[in-house]
Amino acid sequence: MTPTITAFAQSPDRGQGLARDMRVRWALEEVGQPYEVRLVSFQAMKEPGHLARHPFGQIPTYEEGDLVLFESGAIVLHIAERHAGLLPDDANGRARAITWMFAALNTVEPPILDLQTAKFLEGDKPWNLERMTLIRERIRHRLRALSVRLGDADWLDGGFSAGDLMMVHALLRLRLSGILDEFPNLAAYVTRGETRPAYERAFAAQRAVFIGTPPPR
Amino acid sequence: MTPTITAFAQSPDRGQGLARDMRVRWALEEVGQPYEVRLVSFQAMKEPGHLARHPFGQIPTYEEGDLVLFESGAIVLHIAERHAGLLPDDANGRARAITWMFAALNTVEPPILDLQTAKFLEGDKPWNLERMTLIRERIRHRLRALSVRLGDADWLDGGFSAGDLMMVHALLRLRLSGILDEFPNLAAYVTRGETRPAYERAFAAQRAVFIGTPPPR
Repeated sequence: MTPTITAFAQSPDRGQGLARDMRVRWALEEVGQPYEVRLVSFQAMKEPGHLARHPFGQIPTYEEGDLVLFESGAIVLHIAERHAGLLPDDANGRARAITWMFAALNTVEPPILDLQTAKFLEGDKPWNLERMTLIRERIRHRLRALSVRLGDADWLDGGFSAGDLMMVHALLRLRLSGILDEFPNLAAYVTRGETRPAYERAFAAQRAVFIGTPPPR
Repeated sequence: MTPTITAFAQSPDRGQGLARDMRVRWALEEVGQPYEVRLVSFQAMKEPGHLARHPFGQIPTYEEGDLVLFESGAIVLHIAERHAGLLPDDANGRARAITWMFAALNTVEPPILDLQTAKFLEGDKPWNLERMTLIRERIRHRLRALSVRLGDADWLDGGFSAGDLMMVHALLRLRLSGILDEFPNLAAYVTRGETRPAYERAFAAQRAVFIGTPPPR
């Protein structure tokens, strides 16, 4: 059964691939699972039809027969558990890859999202610059630890996994800030993720929505 | 094999159960799995021995034979997948329960943690009060949606699950703020969680560390 995901009808990042549907698209491309996309407007996201699928009125959602899921982390894990390619075969390696998914979402991403919140929701405050500086230091604190752990490995724990997928996507949001370039091994890690063919297909598909042409598939 | 978890040797919340080892203790109590606890000092958390287990130098960690995990979400999911009691039997219900775990950690908890960051790390700033007000409104925004979804149900999706465990624990941190009491059904939901015998045993065990007596088991 072909799953259907939701994505923004109007791309807030102008097709840069930072919206969270990108994580789900990327996972589906990695495992070779075709999917349908239903675009939702900002207005429709707050209406009962969409809220029944996503109680917090966000994207992405994932529908597959009777099953409706939300939260990009949960959706990527669901895909990874049902298809080969995103989790190792051995039980311990699997548990560690899932650990990296949670680390990406709960330890690395929060200060990165804070930077965005400060920029867009508190940008008019006289204290914004001072706060942005504090947040950037919190991001560096996390990235220093991540950089040490990654070392000169290609991926966080053996082969590419759903943990790398989530981590690369969380880090991508830092590119314009310049912080990522302070950690060359992390910058190279992100580039390794972005140049995977599955990432490139997912990126092109979400960008096609912004450009307004049908996705190339 | 009895797993070993790590917890703070010096409880930052004076035994109120807000540290993240509480989530793991609670999950282990729900499934009836005995465990060992190794207490780590703030200094030891930054040393190579602990960093090998937790690259970000935090607690909890989980060790079971050769397997070492970190991130409370990943550990609770690992426990829930290997024991009965924290995930429904049917595949779709399971995926939905896991979705609520991610929702607790990535959608509901971030603004709640922001309130704590603002209080402890930015409390001396002249703009702290203004920012706390912004954060409180962001928390209310999430809680309104959660309150609507919960309605008059006991738990988020059928019976108690690992999703409820994570959500209740994320919400608990709000108690002193007064915000939780603005949503009576969420306040009652948290109370339902806290009065589960497994929660009470876990709470007593972590509190015993603070009080300095051996855990009651």
